[in-house]
Amino acid sequence: MIEPDPKRLKTEDAPYELVYWHGLPGRGEFIRLLFVEAGVPWKDTSDKGMEASTGQVLELISPDSGPSVQGKNPPVCAVPALRHGDVLLSQTPNILQYLAPRLGLAPKEGVAVYHLNQIVLTLIDGFVNELHDTHHPISVSAYYEDQKPEAKKRSKFFIEERIPKFLGYAQRVLDAETSGEGPWLYGDSLTYADLVLFQSIDGTQFAFPKTFQKLKESGKYDGVFKLYETIKERPAIKEYLASDKRQKYGDGIWRHYPELEEEDEKKE
Amino acid sequence: MIEPDPKRLKTEDAPYELVYWHGLPGRGEFIRLLFVEAGVPWKDTSDKGMEASTGQVLELISPDSGPSVQGKNPPVCAVPALRHGDVLLSQTPNILQYLAPRLGLAPKEGVAVYHLNQIVLTLIDGFVNELHDTHHPISVSAYYEDQKPEAKKRSKFFIEERIPKFLGYAQRVLDAETSGEGPWLYGDSLTYADLVLFQSIDGTQFAFPKTFQKLKESGKYDGVFKLYETIKERPAIKEYLASDKRQKYGDGIWRHYPELEEEDEKKE
Repeated sequence: MIEPDPKRLKTEDAPYELVYWHGLPGRGEFIRLLFVEAGVPWKDTSDKGMEASTGQVLELISPDSGPSVQGKNPPVCAVPALRHGDVLLSQTPNILQYLAPRLGLAPKEGVAVYHLNQIVLTLIDGFVNELHDTHHPISVSAYYEDQKPEAKKRSKFFIEERIPKFLGYAQRVLDAETSGEGPWLYGDSLTYADLVLFQSIDGTQFAFPKTFQKLKESGKYDGVFKLYETIKERPAIKEYLASDKRQKYGDGIWRHYPELEEEDEKKE
Repeated sequence: MIEPDPKRLKTEDAPYELVYWHGLPGRGEFIRLLFVEAGVPWKDTSDKGMEASTGQVLELISPDSGPSVQGKNPPVCAVPALRHGDVLLSQTPNILQYLAPRLGLAPKEGVAVYHLNQIVLTLIDGFVNELHDTHHPISVSAYYEDQKPEAKKRSKFFIEERIPKFLGYAQRVLDAETSGEGPWLYGDSLTYADLVLFQSIDGTQFAFPKTFQKLKESGKYDGVFKLYETIKERPAIKEYLASDKRQKYGDGIWRHYPELEEEDEKKE
């Protein structure tokens, strides 16, 4: 085992820095929303503009990156990554788990740590990982245009089975005893899982607006949509969403291709 | 926040029970290997045979499951799940993170907790989640036979780009300063990340044996394959692998469809 490094102690007072692609909310957005809600400032590579931030991301995830970039941390396979003093972390649910108790958005210990991680991993599986494959079912390194027929098939399945499955899951979390007073997923106060739900819904709704309209009207997921609206109206979140710090959806995870949502029986 | 429940204290002495499908190593295998290496007995629903274990899994993940099944825990969307006294957890990396420090396979606190989680999440992304989609690129609820052309395309990409990417990642973790003395991914002794690597390689190699043969011969990932062999020879693991407790690969995540590995240019 690696022994605790006394230098790490200083880390707790260091500023946070998010390393992520410029020009997309993407997975980085889950992390940004924690800082916004907590009122804690953070440095964001994407503020440096396209060229500088892309350079920094590529340097970090390059197979040639070494100790000069990663310090005393394991290498990073993909962004988002978080720098916090000497600490460098990657993998969205992992970064969130590190940050949330430090920002007052999750308990520091006990079974709640694992309950929250479970909820977050499930939401990200459905609304980020599976959703991503609706437009890239064959290869992340090929263009959408080159996998359009497969994207259409996968989207049909995602719309009909997976979105209802994961919305139903979120509603069940809200209906469970572990969701206490108030609109929150877990316990009696806002946690980072609620922020993850907000971004998951916001992005997936952007990608499949017609589908979401129908699902909203079904009345089956009222708790989920109420929580979504509650988060949207949190003062700090509301101000952030209206600002130009909130980046626009585009060619990232959450894309809106109207043809993926169209019922097109003739072509089948 | 939910207050710690005094009843939970008893939980630490309770036996562990894995809830998982019968007849497959699957994601449950990551969890089993921790118990095996630690020499800690566990109950396994899959020991109850196909019918009883399937019933138990379906009861747990059913949208109708309530407090009588889940207790004071959030609902479970998918298995594996772990029961430990009053605690019920799902999501493989989450269960591993809960178990590892309790079984002496990870530190209890500090940045190492997040470093290990990062490594495990990355390995599972590549060798489990992405691999699964090689045979089910369109829909998990449709048969492989109904998505074979897409499976072939996705496998080509997985073989050419993703397996080398994730093997390269694992080798970089081994080459980094955070991998200390010995063959281990992190620190100077075996952690649960090493067991995750073992199962990841073992399963992916079963699915794509020709590809792995070539990659082994390339000499680029010697540390990874050395670690794989080291784990395979751990006395408890070795005994387990030779026993009938180790279930055979079949129709689970890691499937061997020879046609997915064939270079078949004529059909393109």
